[in-house]
Amino acid sequence: MDLLEQRILEEGIVLPGNVLKVDSFLNHQIDPQLSMAMGEEFADLFGDVEIDRVLTVEASGIAIGVTTALKLGVPMVFARKKASVLMTEPAYTEQVYSYTKKETSNITVLKKFLPAGEKVLIIDDFLANGEAALGLARLVEKAGSQVAGIGIAIEKAFQNGHQKILDAGYRLEALASVAALENGKVEFVEED
Amino acid sequence: MDLLEQRILEEGIVLPGNVLKVDSFLNHQIDPQLSMAMGEEFADLFGDVEIDRVLTVEASGIAIGVTTALKLGVPMVFARKKASVLMTEPAYTEQVYSYTKKETSNITVLKKFLPAGEKVLIIDDFLANGEAALGLARLVEKAGSQVAGIGIAIEKAFQNGHQKILDAGYRLEALASVAALENGKVEFVEED
Repeated sequence: MDLLEQRILEEGIVLPGNVLKVDSFLNHQIDPQLSMAMGEEFADLFGDVEIDRVLTVEASGIAIGVTTALKLGVPMVFARKKASVLMTEPAYTEQVYSYTKKETSNITVLKKFLPAGEKVLIIDDFLANGEAALGLARLVEKAGSQVAGIGIAIEKAFQNGHQKILDAGYRLEALASVAALENGKVEFVEED
Repeated sequence: MDLLEQRILEEGIVLPGNVLKVDSFLNHQIDPQLSMAMGEEFADLFGDVEIDRVLTVEASGIAIGVTTALKLGVPMVFARKKASVLMTEPAYTEQVYSYTKKETSNITVLKKFLPAGEKVLIIDDFLANGEAALGLARLVEKAGSQVAGIGIAIEKAFQNGHQKILDAGYRLEALASVAALENGKVEFVEED
């Protein structure tokens, strides 16, 4: 997605440890026009499959999850990283390790918002080692539903999440695929 | 806002301790069409004041924050309840106590995303004791900006946040104002 790649080149900051900061438009300050354009792009990319629901995880997945769901005309649900004290009903929980934060979270969705027999599109802002996306996929399958696909705003294609998702048999669409983050410079995967 | 009040009557669940659960459309599962309608309503309600930026707090404020900002054509920033390990730059932080969760969070925004001299619209999903909204307002003022107004999806007008916000001199607009939550029933404030 040219618009997103352009924005990454203009505003992305590369830090040691293969970190790409895009907090000026994606995950702290948010550009709502870009969020809407990303939602439309996800809806187009997965336009050939049936989708009943969008699933994401707080907090950075919510803006693009809601615009994607809006465009698809389906509900969105976000997994919580910390169960609210109000979440007293039966829930599905999966452990997800964050390499960036060096901590494990229990991502949780109430069962009533992840019914069986649906086709669920997973949306998230970043893909690196695939922990969050695969944790969300396990939630969907625990619920007796099917993963319709996994849509990622920015994937770091040189880390192992990309291949893990393909190996698990899921369809993956990334709006921007980063091939390398060397010498402070972002290089994208060349399109076929 | 009739659409929101109707939805609260249909799906809201009243629990002991003046808790109103609306997790089927506002803060866990999200109805993206309703989020868009709420954003349009906030933009209309504050249409007479200058707004440079929308500020909300993760996680439940994000969906309506982004739709409001989209409609206003301004950026949105969400305060984090837990600073990310990537947030190493200078930040503004305020303590906010949650009566529901019985815990204090440090809500944090990077200074570069809350520049001085702006008019900032604060958006949040719920207003009860006003802790979150007033914490966000303190962040705005620390930054040398002005609070253009406070927009709340659902206020519990019988708790003290409503009056605290008015006493502090802020303009408050709530899309649904709950007058009482007695005997498991939601009663709205009657409009003038």
